[in-house]
Amino acid sequence: MTDGCDGDAADGETTDGGWTDAEEEIMLATYRALLEHGYAGLSISRIADELGKSKASIYYHYDSKEDLLGAFLAYAADRFQSSVLTEADDDPRAELERVVETLLPLRPDEEMRQIQAVFLGLRGQAVTNGTFREQFTEIDDQLAATIRGIVERGIEEGTFRDVDADRVAEHVLATINGAMYGRATSDRETAVAAVRVSLSSYLDAELRRQS
Amino acid sequence: MTDGCDGDAADGETTDGGWTDAEEEIMLATYRALLEHGYAGLSISRIADELGKSKASIYYHYDSKEDLLGAFLAYAADRFQSSVLTEADDDPRAELERVVETLLPLRPDEEMRQIQAVFLGLRGQAVTNGTFREQFTEIDDQLAATIRGIVERGIEEGTFRDVDADRVAEHVLATINGAMYGRATSDRETAVAAVRVSLSSYLDAELRRQS
Repeated sequence: MTDGCDGDAADGETTDGGWTDAEEEIMLATYRALLEHGYAGLSISRIADELGKSKASIYYHYDSKEDLLGAFLAYAADRFQSSVLTEADDDPRAELERVVETLLPLRPDEEMRQIQAVFLGLRGQAVTNGTFREQFTEIDDQLAATIRGIVERGIEEGTFRDVDADRVAEHVLATINGAMYGRATSDRETAVAAVRVSLSSYLDAELRRQS
Repeated sequence: MTDGCDGDAADGETTDGGWTDAEEEIMLATYRALLEHGYAGLSISRIADELGKSKASIYYHYDSKEDLLGAFLAYAADRFQSSVLTEADDDPRAELERVVETLLPLRPDEEMRQIQAVFLGLRGQAVTNGTFREQFTEIDDQLAATIRGIVERGIEEGTFRDVDADRVAEHVLATINGAMYGRATSDRETAVAAVRVSLSSYLDAELRRQS
């Protein structure tokens, strides 16, 4: 997925995802600046500081902070998607559990909490910002497609019942997103554990073949 | 719930919820200013404009914008909770459906969309703002308690199976919050309809007594 990259991909070496080295360095600097200052405190100056280069070297690739953040979300979506990509030789039920644990870990470490806080900050802007909205639409589309794909494979292999895979995928994604959002914006620490148990029960009840 | 009200409740007439008329006028002005300008554009000046009074008349009740918004969330939680409060003579399964429809309407009107956008804007701040975080903890606690209460009543009356009511309540709340959040921050319009169907199936499967 490189459509969201607004930089000029032809001006240098590209990495596997189609990003040039220069772009990737800017993305990593943006990530560090977001972790340090949050969305509200983010500026091109601070990204340039993290990058150890001039602001002009960023403006050469991106017209504005919004343009850069749109590209950053596309970049992050690429990396994020890779991290939940399934290994096709796994048992589909175990794969679903792994996707859930990746997106909604029972005990997130400090870095995971910070990453989710950064994304929630950006996602909040998507209420009014069309560029961000497109990126989060893409991210949720990809996550739903990943979950749906596992469910469909389980049905084809005869492990799962013949359920509506799309409906199950949307349910799982909404539940994960809601619990993640709740954890980042409230002090209801035990809620995620309850949701993880209920989500497992839901998947078992919904997908298991009648014996 | 009046604990979250930071104004001086003793300086005038109080409404049913323990808010003085003056405080309630400020809350309604804050609500109108939020709908018009969003969280990012909110200022005491703009609230004063909506109120038709001076900024000093607001600062008499609230020390700062944050103080006022903390009170606003408490006020909104009061009103919101009243809107989903259940009528005890209803069938518990129908009551659950009504709570879901109130929180996650299939076809929200423009006002509902705006209200949810305002709350998402405020909730995004709860990642870093302790006052907001407390209020959203309270709001989610109340919503979970409402759902849990209906499930417990259904169990007591023998309509529902003897499930873990807390787990079901957390699952339903997370799914609703995730779908609401997704709708406000992406263009995945059909996702909510899929979640509504799957949530009904989940509740039917989870709660129905084995025949």
